[in-house]
Amino acid sequence: MSTTPTTPTGHHTRMASEIAEQPEAARRTLDHLLPERDRLRGLFADRRRVLLVARGSSDNAAIYGRYLLEVAAGVPASLAAPSVATHYRARLDLSDTVVVSVSQSGSTTEIVETQEWARSCGAATVGVTNVEGSPLAESADVPLVTQAGPEVAVPATKTYLTQLVALGVLADALGADVAGDLARVPDAVTGLLGHDVSVASEALAAADRVVVSGRGLLLGTALETALKMEETCLRPVRGYSYADLRHGPISVVSEGLLAVLVGSAHGPLAEPMADLVRDLQGRGARVLGLGGTPEFAGLCDVHLAGPDLPETVEPVASIVPAQMMIEQMALRMGLDPDNPRGLNKVTATEFAGTDS
Amino acid sequence: MSTTPTTPTGHHTRMASEIAEQPEAARRTLDHLLPERDRLRGLFADRRRVLLVARGSSDNAAIYGRYLLEVAAGVPASLAAPSVATHYRARLDLSDTVVVSVSQSGSTTEIVETQEWARSCGAATVGVTNVEGSPLAESADVPLVTQAGPEVAVPATKTYLTQLVALGVLADALGADVAGDLARVPDAVTGLLGHDVSVASEALAAADRVVVSGRGLLLGTALETALKMEETCLRPVRGYSYADLRHGPISVVSEGLLAVLVGSAHGPLAEPMADLVRDLQGRGARVLGLGGTPEFAGLCDVHLAGPDLPETVEPVASIVPAQMMIEQMALRMGLDPDNPRGLNKVTATEFAGTDS
Repeated sequence: MSTTPTTPTGHHTRMASEIAEQPEAARRTLDHLLPERDRLRGLFADRRRVLLVARGSSDNAAIYGRYLLEVAAGVPASLAAPSVATHYRARLDLSDTVVVSVSQSGSTTEIVETQEWARSCGAATVGVTNVEGSPLAESADVPLVTQAGPEVAVPATKTYLTQLVALGVLADALGADVAGDLARVPDAVTGLLGHDVSVASEALAAADRVVVSGRGLLLGTALETALKMEETCLRPVRGYSYADLRHGPISVVSEGLLAVLVGSAHGPLAEPMADLVRDLQGRGARVLGLGGTPEFAGLCDVHLAGPDLPETVEPVASIVPAQMMIEQMALRMGLDPDNPRGLNKVTATEFAGTDS
Repeated sequence: MSTTPTTPTGHHTRMASEIAEQPEAARRTLDHLLPERDRLRGLFADRRRVLLVARGSSDNAAIYGRYLLEVAAGVPASLAAPSVATHYRARLDLSDTVVVSVSQSGSTTEIVETQEWARSCGAATVGVTNVEGSPLAESADVPLVTQAGPEVAVPATKTYLTQLVALGVLADALGADVAGDLARVPDAVTGLLGHDVSVASEALAAADRVVVSGRGLLLGTALETALKMEETCLRPVRGYSYADLRHGPISVVSEGLLAVLVGSAHGPLAEPMADLVRDLQGRGARVLGLGGTPEFAGLCDVHLAGPDLPETVEPVASIVPAQMMIEQMALRMGLDPDNPRGLNKVTATEFAGTDS
């Protein structure tokens, strides 16, 4: 059994290449966006809150942005319900609001339409996109164009990570004081790229059922891990908030469940994650931990180290080991992570793990 | 095979009784809360937005409140992230905000603490609870005490429906003009209580996998249907927004899936639901429809009628056929819906449906 499987033809995947490009993508994005902070502050001269607009992976980035803005910048932030704009055409007074739309392509009709609606309701607009000249970038008051470069693999990796960087820059402009910590992210990601995810990916490939949970600033990371695993490994994987998994239906947690918990090494939510591990194990589940405190790491059945960064910017790097284990999990299942829907017919058995 | 199963001892369940009490509970709640509209309007004299605080079933009620306030009252509304208050202790300026906390018991520590935090951030407070004299009611600027009466069965039914009534009254106070339509809800619910849910509950009990979806004003109804089915029937059931199910991972929709779709008979989202039925059926799923347009009803494999009410108040009554089919589904699975965690040892076979 190979511990680092490649595609059936022996090539590395584009997804793996794009994961590995993230330190440079983050560095380029920071260099490009930090000078925009004055313009961002200008938008807030007479505005006091943020409304985030996004779908899919970008929605998970927006969830991080929401927590970061509220917790670290003291700016009230929330997520829009796009149908309120696109179908109900509600007339809201958004003259105190900056609408931040997040879309990798900058061309998603629903997001572009919602940004236009927000402007017509009086909002100022910020567009976070990876595509210079896209409709979202062209029509925003301040475009924040991430510098991930072209992304070829279907699962978003470097475009997602650079969206988090852009939202970090926005929060810094509004008082979060995270620019110094954001500058540490590229090296932290480089460090994570050297880790061995084979035991974690084997456990995932062999699991009957998988759920993912996280909390607070790392909730978005947990939801993105679940979504990425669904998209890449073609398996239903549900993301839960800590509260929903802790107090949720008994049906969810039982023998055969592998719970992926994304922990924080610091901050007020770091400690309770260890209790959640004990609780889940007591109900028959196994726990794959990512990051978190030393106590948390010691309790998990399988553990991947997270970045050594303050909680406010930790999520920017915490997604990286998750991406790595998902890419390897797909290969172990005989799937092509670059294009998961073009189902590869190699059976999963060939790469299945042994520690089920 | 009985088409209306009772408990193994032949008694009707408390859950069924409490479902049947809902017309009176809604009427009492309306009578009790409509006179509070002047005080609610007073809170908004110098405030312009709503922040909703809730967990679990109450969170699904809050999602309805959010859409109703934005779509029908033109008031920007969003859902709070409780950990921002309870763990991060963020300092936000909420002096332009009315915080609406929703908790059946009015004693959930996290919700009561979040309401106190909101007040310390400058918010005015409204507490929606079923318990007079509870901490949430006692400390709110305006308590809205629903009149469901004591709820004995574990799954919330009449307390959830009356929370929607309370949020409808709030929206009416802020300009939604729904009081006349809310007055029609009790009779609409009485009409729904006479419907036969045996085919739907048999299909659910026999299904391999179940998901639930809805959209806009009815999204909360879909999420509540999923949560209630998980709690009552001890089976993982995921609620999806329309967008997530329509564009979601191929893994989710396949042969053996029963998709429960909660449709609206009116409004801008009514028509697209028929497209979703065709899409899901084309991917091998069966569809159990609830409410919606005649075209939607005709396409579904199994269909339950919804209420004949405008979309703005339709969700208050649409949950009723869902509650009825879930109570019957639990009985067909050999479970006690009143206390699902006290697992009944009668095997599911005894009541299993035949149309799988």
